[in-house]
Amino acid sequence: MRFVDIINKKRLNQPLTKEEIQFWIDGYVKGDIPDYQVSALCMAIVLNGMNREETRDLTMAMTYSGDVIDLSAINGVKVDKHSTGGVGDKTSLSLTPMVAACGAKVAKMSGRGLGHTGGTLDKLESIKGFDIMIGQEDFIRQVNEIGVSIVGQNAQLVPADKKLYALRDVTGTVQSIPLIASSIMSKKLASGADTILLDVKYGEGAFMQTVEEAKVLAKTMIEIGTDCGRDTRAMITDMNQPLGKAIGNALEVKEAIETLKGNGPEDFTELCMTAGSIMLQQAHIAKDETEARAMLKEAVTSGAALQKLRDFVKAQHGDVKMIDNPELLPSARFMTPVKTRSAGFVTDLKALELGNLAMRLGAGRATKEDVINPAVGIVLNKKVGNTVRMGEALAIIHHDTPLEENWLEDFYNTFTIEPTCDNVEPLIAAVL
Amino acid sequence: MRFVDIINKKRLNQPLTKEEIQFWIDGYVKGDIPDYQVSALCMAIVLNGMNREETRDLTMAMTYSGDVIDLSAINGVKVDKHSTGGVGDKTSLSLTPMVAACGAKVAKMSGRGLGHTGGTLDKLESIKGFDIMIGQEDFIRQVNEIGVSIVGQNAQLVPADKKLYALRDVTGTVQSIPLIASSIMSKKLASGADTILLDVKYGEGAFMQTVEEAKVLAKTMIEIGTDCGRDTRAMITDMNQPLGKAIGNALEVKEAIETLKGNGPEDFTELCMTAGSIMLQQAHIAKDETEARAMLKEAVTSGAALQKLRDFVKAQHGDVKMIDNPELLPSARFMTPVKTRSAGFVTDLKALELGNLAMRLGAGRATKEDVINPAVGIVLNKKVGNTVRMGEALAIIHHDTPLEENWLEDFYNTFTIEPTCDNVEPLIAAVL
Repeated sequence: MRFVDIINKKRLNQPLTKEEIQFWIDGYVKGDIPDYQVSALCMAIVLNGMNREETRDLTMAMTYSGDVIDLSAINGVKVDKHSTGGVGDKTSLSLTPMVAACGAKVAKMSGRGLGHTGGTLDKLESIKGFDIMIGQEDFIRQVNEIGVSIVGQNAQLVPADKKLYALRDVTGTVQSIPLIASSIMSKKLASGADTILLDVKYGEGAFMQTVEEAKVLAKTMIEIGTDCGRDTRAMITDMNQPLGKAIGNALEVKEAIETLKGNGPEDFTELCMTAGSIMLQQAHIAKDETEARAMLKEAVTSGAALQKLRDFVKAQHGDVKMIDNPELLPSARFMTPVKTRSAGFVTDLKALELGNLAMRLGAGRATKEDVINPAVGIVLNKKVGNTVRMGEALAIIHHDTPLEENWLEDFYNTFTIEPTCDNVEPLIAAVL
Repeated sequence: MRFVDIINKKRLNQPLTKEEIQFWIDGYVKGDIPDYQVSALCMAIVLNGMNREETRDLTMAMTYSGDVIDLSAINGVKVDKHSTGGVGDKTSLSLTPMVAACGAKVAKMSGRGLGHTGGTLDKLESIKGFDIMIGQEDFIRQVNEIGVSIVGQNAQLVPADKKLYALRDVTGTVQSIPLIASSIMSKKLASGADTILLDVKYGEGAFMQTVEEAKVLAKTMIEIGTDCGRDTRAMITDMNQPLGKAIGNALEVKEAIETLKGNGPEDFTELCMTAGSIMLQQAHIAKDETEARAMLKEAVTSGAALQKLRDFVKAQHGDVKMIDNPELLPSARFMTPVKTRSAGFVTDLKALELGNLAMRLGAGRATKEDVINPAVGIVLNKKVGNTVRMGEALAIIHHDTPLEENWLEDFYNTFTIEPTCDNVEPLIAAVL
């Protein structure tokens, strides 16, 4: 088999066989096939696409390019959830204790963030002592005992995706449904869960710009999951504005704790309820949405969900005092309210730019080597649909160095304030 | 400027600016832009195309990536001709002395062959002593004095094309009209001639499979040439069967000499007459086709064309005795007639496979390091449209080692012999 023939086939818009896809992924991971050939193939895939069989074969080849985690020692259905990423997305921090409190088993592997704000691991690490690198045995014992653990991705998990993603990032070949879907799903499959819930974001702050594009990606991932024998479902959710109010690592942990106490922002609470409801049904713990929502509500009201977060943090050597007293979490030197320059309704918020503004404060990484400052970030006071009166603050900025003038200008530009507000897009556009 | 943004633009099917194309070619030649980014861009160009302006800008950026030859010291219009390549194509050997004998100036740079048979340089080198590496001053003096010189391409001529072509060859990105057209035309423009005649081949033995594809390529190259101020014309010619009868270096030189004596194969002679007629009009030596053809015919009948070849070979230190006595040219140890296995009409000949069979005898290079055997090759006795009777030979094979059984089987498979022959495609499909 010659790799150039495989490139030519895809250039001519012909489907690749399972063997050809396996040859590609094996050869690329081993270093036998050079970057310059793989980037040409990726561009041909971006422009000519892949059918359902090819996408499944690619996902499977990537999944088995490295370790595949065996979770069979954990009793019961292992549920997993994945978000395609957005600004202010601290869902895992609240959702996993909630469903674990209802009896679900969550053995989760997460990534770090690059760009705007940190990933789930970065957020958890703002809790003093929290260890994301516990061993495989401890990971499994913890999930069996308390129902939830979140750890860093094993370096040997889907090496094909690591190499391929780094190449796609610099060759204009990121934007492809089959390549994005296989990248996400190979990691989920290698992580070993029985069920997968996908939170596919759309809008200005997401990979997918429209509901329609997000649906296509979601359906592709559901097909892969289904073809690989996993109960796979998806939510399509709005990322035109940040999720919740807090953007920044410790600030998001605080918001997650408030949500577990029943005091979270309305949109974020609803997302956790919807996602949790699907996961409890996937785990066969609840028979329908009504029952699932009642269980989740009870877990919050009774304090069981917050207790589960406490147990989870303690099991991974985190400082539980920070959960009980969130003011002990890292906090910034300055808290500056930014007052509105005009009154009216917030009709638009630029999620991606708010993420970038938080990164400029130190909350995210511009390059892999950057160190995150857990304390800094933005807490929005106003979101889309809210009224703004003169004198009111749009947000509180948590920062360690003085705010620069152009930062403030850029911040103001993320808000669109108009005299009237017609309609606000629903947070959850669809459940598939 | 970031190269990934340029790739993304072409991925989204947007035209690139002159500055972006310049940034690409400059950066690639300097080594600042890696292969894996350029191959992704090339695939996006293969699939999304380039418009007329982009194709011209790319050609110009490539042309000026290295030396550009100044032929202004040569008096008169400098004419050039380029063939997109085919099997048995010895046109330059006969055509250039013919037009030089009529007063045209041909200062030609040629390449070596890779695959099936040799290039023009390889064919010339089967003449003992022939020097393809004469210096720039001698080259210009020779064209001024005798009207014709053919030399090897300067290593500094269009370095961008050398690097780009090597990459395209292994990344499935050869098949693109704008990339093929800019590759050919950048070399023609850098070679400095005033007029360009393109012989664009179509058919089984050519890059372009159909007349229509060949016309698109020809029109694209004419646009480039016109946009760059050169009188550029094209012929679309058949390469479903080899040109003339001889395939192999010294064998083709012999056929070229016979043609200059007026005894060449009909198809090859007609190609030289048509091409020569266009070139003489481009050089403003003949006012129309009738006059041009009469001049060319006279050059052959009078012996002036053959004398021009003699002068040309002598000027480049070749052994003129080999022109006067072609039997002195390298000859193979064995000459084996291959007799037909069936009678009827030849309805099809596989040009590419015949080229490969000649290469297997030693007439071409499978890799750049291979040494060509000038003596070996195939002389066809029958071509498409000819009748074949039992007992007749299809061809004479000139070989230095015994013919292998599978070589012979493959040879027989290049001929299709049927009871009737409907129509034979014309050699020259169009002149543009």
